[in-house]
Amino acid sequence: MKNKFNIKDSFWSYYQELVSDVILPYQYDILNDSVDDPDTEKSHSFENFRIAAGESKGEFYGYVFQDSDTAKWLEAVAYSLMIKPDKELERKADDIISLIGRAQQPDGYMNTYFIVKEPENKWKNLRDCHELYCAGHFIEAGAAYYEATGKRELLNIVIRLADLIYDIFIKNKTDGIPGHPEIELALVRLYRTTGAKKYLELAKYFIDIRGKKITDKENLLIFNSRYHQSAVPVREETNAVGHAVRAVYLYTGMAMTAKETGDETLLEACERMWNSIVKKRMYITGGIGSSAEAGEAFTMDYDLPNDTAYNETCASIGLIFFAKAMLEMTNNAKYADVAELALYNTVLAGVQRDGKRFFYTNPLEVDPIYTKKIPHYNHIYSSRPKWHACACCPPNVAKLIASLNQYAWHTDGSVYYSDLFIGGRYIPYENTVITTQTDYPYSGKVKYSVSGTENINIAVRRPEWCFSMIVTVNGVFYDCDINDGYAIIENLKDGDTIIVDIDITPHRVYSNTKVHANDGKCAFMAGSIIYCFEDCDNNDLNNYYADKDGEIILKNISDENIGNVNILQIPAYKMEQFDSLYRFKKPKTEKTRLVAIPYYAWGNRKEGKMKVWIAEK
Amino acid sequence: MKNKFNIKDSFWSYYQELVSDVILPYQYDILNDSVDDPDTEKSHSFENFRIAAGESKGEFYGYVFQDSDTAKWLEAVAYSLMIKPDKELERKADDIISLIGRAQQPDGYMNTYFIVKEPENKWKNLRDCHELYCAGHFIEAGAAYYEATGKRELLNIVIRLADLIYDIFIKNKTDGIPGHPEIELALVRLYRTTGAKKYLELAKYFIDIRGKKITDKENLLIFNSRYHQSAVPVREETNAVGHAVRAVYLYTGMAMTAKETGDETLLEACERMWNSIVKKRMYITGGIGSSAEAGEAFTMDYDLPNDTAYNETCASIGLIFFAKAMLEMTNNAKYADVAELALYNTVLAGVQRDGKRFFYTNPLEVDPIYTKKIPHYNHIYSSRPKWHACACCPPNVAKLIASLNQYAWHTDGSVYYSDLFIGGRYIPYENTVITTQTDYPYSGKVKYSVSGTENINIAVRRPEWCFSMIVTVNGVFYDCDINDGYAIIENLKDGDTIIVDIDITPHRVYSNTKVHANDGKCAFMAGSIIYCFEDCDNNDLNNYYADKDGEIILKNISDENIGNVNILQIPAYKMEQFDSLYRFKKPKTEKTRLVAIPYYAWGNRKEGKMKVWIAEK
Repeated sequence: MKNKFNIKDSFWSYYQELVSDVILPYQYDILNDSVDDPDTEKSHSFENFRIAAGESKGEFYGYVFQDSDTAKWLEAVAYSLMIKPDKELERKADDIISLIGRAQQPDGYMNTYFIVKEPENKWKNLRDCHELYCAGHFIEAGAAYYEATGKRELLNIVIRLADLIYDIFIKNKTDGIPGHPEIELALVRLYRTTGAKKYLELAKYFIDIRGKKITDKENLLIFNSRYHQSAVPVREETNAVGHAVRAVYLYTGMAMTAKETGDETLLEACERMWNSIVKKRMYITGGIGSSAEAGEAFTMDYDLPNDTAYNETCASIGLIFFAKAMLEMTNNAKYADVAELALYNTVLAGVQRDGKRFFYTNPLEVDPIYTKKIPHYNHIYSSRPKWHACACCPPNVAKLIASLNQYAWHTDGSVYYSDLFIGGRYIPYENTVITTQTDYPYSGKVKYSVSGTENINIAVRRPEWCFSMIVTVNGVFYDCDINDGYAIIENLKDGDTIIVDIDITPHRVYSNTKVHANDGKCAFMAGSIIYCFEDCDNNDLNNYYADKDGEIILKNISDENIGNVNILQIPAYKMEQFDSLYRFKKPKTEKTRLVAIPYYAWGNRKEGKMKVWIAEK
Repeated sequence: MKNKFNIKDSFWSYYQELVSDVILPYQYDILNDSVDDPDTEKSHSFENFRIAAGESKGEFYGYVFQDSDTAKWLEAVAYSLMIKPDKELERKADDIISLIGRAQQPDGYMNTYFIVKEPENKWKNLRDCHELYCAGHFIEAGAAYYEATGKRELLNIVIRLADLIYDIFIKNKTDGIPGHPEIELALVRLYRTTGAKKYLELAKYFIDIRGKKITDKENLLIFNSRYHQSAVPVREETNAVGHAVRAVYLYTGMAMTAKETGDETLLEACERMWNSIVKKRMYITGGIGSSAEAGEAFTMDYDLPNDTAYNETCASIGLIFFAKAMLEMTNNAKYADVAELALYNTVLAGVQRDGKRFFYTNPLEVDPIYTKKIPHYNHIYSSRPKWHACACCPPNVAKLIASLNQYAWHTDGSVYYSDLFIGGRYIPYENTVITTQTDYPYSGKVKYSVSGTENINIAVRRPEWCFSMIVTVNGVFYDCDINDGYAIIENLKDGDTIIVDIDITPHRVYSNTKVHANDGKCAFMAGSIIYCFEDCDNNDLNNYYADKDGEIILKNISDENIGNVNILQIPAYKMEQFDSLYRFKKPKTEKTRLVAIPYYAWGNRKEGKMKVWIAEK
């Protein structure tokens, strides 16, 4: 199957090609243990399947959720094949799928950890053992691979697995809470692909059972824990809590279920979680999960330290899933605003420009002197490491970028919403094409050309951060109201063009004063891009603060390590240096300018200090 | 015995009376388990001695170093008796000393944990079991009680104990490193009291053995560990490392040993540790040990977070011991500067104004919303708790304040150095009195009246922080050079008066820019007092930043909760409030003033946010 929207974009085509040509083949080699490099941790993910299928000797190796790396890779391959056919990649995927089929047990069970290592303990510890999490990722992969290739083999495998899960939890009435949500959103997707209502029923079951009161603290099937979002029923929770990836996966499943069932109370719960995140618990980069120590988790309102932030790449990806599910249900641009923020900043920061190294955590301030040398910086890296044993993020990034075609537009059937400004051809329905041309995010100009249709309504998002957006239709100024963040232009027909000019003039960003980490500081933004400062552009970042006034200059540059970007030249002060720890006389200052680059591009050049928020005087 | 210097001071007499009249009787009741209050943790320290003496049934209770609470209390009582005779207190102390004597074993051994609980494991785990640490505190108490009362009972007890230790480690050549230094400084003190060189030899042995290379990682008598300052020999260490209290106790012992032995390499090692602390690892309040997670420890240069600082009260007390030992060896006022900073700020902050609650940790920024609710704030309190089970700090504070008489002056035999500006009568030698009158720290005027002598040289410290110090002798301006931080006025005789006028005009303090936590911030100081802001004076501290310019007004007030203090009125801006997490338009500001109070006085009124460093624009 082809995508309805095909990306041909000055910014994103590079990343999509990177995924297809570099990241997916490279990840195949890693999952296949054919990368021989001491800095690359062993995966063993394919080998575990060979052992489970009885085709190889040896021990299971890796995390209890090691299977999910294979599943995410397959899902990403599916999306990549929709962008660009690749026989070699498809053959590799088919081989792995066939292997998975041989490893699957007659009753449909499929999890190599339990097949190989603890067959007697299947379904006994849902809290910690990720069986339903891995199942969810395979279900997503099965649906995606079927949609991409029309091949049913993996879909059939996951249907057998989903049916087994249905039998255990619904037919046999075993109570069980998934310790790491994912199965919920996957089951709704399987319902959408197959039309079988039992999967929606099962998704709803897994959502509704969370927080069911029990007294037995040792029960690993049903348990009360904020970390696992199961301390209270989901409809009674007031804040986004616990492990951030778990949280947003759950909220995505809730939103998808609410859409399919029309469950108003579930929608309200989703809105509460959304507001808790974006109004009180999210970094300006769209990063979430401020604490490593609390368990890669949300902590409390406004507790957003920059230097110790966890901000897992996967959590921002999950936030985009959640945003997408909410957007499709509500047609409110505020969800796309946040998805865009997370995408262009934290998610992209997760990948080295060459596609071979990855950040799992995304702090907003780093000093290499301290990283990994003091307990509270143990999780912080000052440059992207290669493959981790716990390799959740890289395949997730590949999956998101390869499926980005699905995020640019959505429709409620009567209006076609342009959610992300990405160049390409959108075919909303037969014989109709909307062509988008833009140099976004480094230009605010977006041109839509309509062809084929005689009547289509297009809604263009007006980003929350923009001070002005001018719309012209066929060259004439179009005075449109903004509804839920969209400018709606109705009754467009063949030959019509819309030109949208979004103001991406760089500006300062201020934080709510309750965020102690940002006391007296500001950040810089131009369009959807959050900026950061690096030592390599600014000598020693310690010595500067930003001028609270003065014009910020935007300049387009091309750099082999960070690509084509707009950089900022920011009015600043350099402080007189002194040796003592404290000083009783005011240090002298000197006017200067600092250079800021997009946050996502940091760590691609010489290692040094980095910060997003800078003291302002 | 009487003190050579008797305090009669507008500031300190209150605290000395508090120690004698409130803190010591209250601590007696706690150590005796006669305080019945659910918020006060049980001590059992005296009861452990009763059990060890066979006079009570029951189990040992408390930490392995529970004995040290009794020792520190006895030492503090000794100093208190030197200030003010108190028959009731002395009788209680005598009773406890007699009990300790009955608990001591025939060979001199004395540690209730091992006597009662693990008699077979004496001297087997020096790293963790604090036998030498407790011994050190008893030795200090024995020397102090003898000096205060002339009674030898406790001195004899600790001599028997010290002799036993000498036999084990020197005579029997058992290698052993004290896991928590303290014995070293105590042994030098015992040498000074008794004149017996073997104690100095033993102190030197315990210092020199540290960092002796071994390969057996499980050896709990000799071990390599930065936390315990034994990773390298003390003369090879370049930075102040590890648990901060352990560190400064060790450095004090090293400095005292260097003074008595004339060991230049040991003095150099002390100077290196001193510079590492005060030039790179100390808070502006004189707090040290920036990390709870790293083990209440030093971490790395300039890593001085305000909100998660450990800054144990005991560590600042130890820093004062270290400073005093260095000062007596070098006659350099820089040591007194730091002792004063730690004393007037962190140490005093450790005590509630009423003497019944204590801070063990002393962060420079607190928000009660977060304290004890997020892992990295687990050790932070937003108001002083009552007694802890691990009650190291309160008796240490009592001990320091009661012995403050020993810190105001020192002499090298030819010059009498006024190190701390405290009112009172100093009798440097027979028939000579120097009377000091001052309202320091809330006035910079200090008057010294000399009587009796025909020729004395007085050195007055010129604090590092002061912009000017004017000295007049008998009303005439005295143009003195400053040598090593002291103004020396020679050949004073009966009837002479010196008046010193130290500028205590409030001013801003700036941090080395390498301290990330203080980016763009300033602190405020007037004289030796570091200031802080509290919500109760300033509504909601989140909403303000300080004006980088403008006059700071100093005002004397009297408040029932914080006493007589100088407060500051500081030019500041109030920021426009907004609800969103981030904002793209600059918030409006409005000129206003903030009130700052002395840091030591915080937490005595309504609970709220507190901060020392504030963003400045």
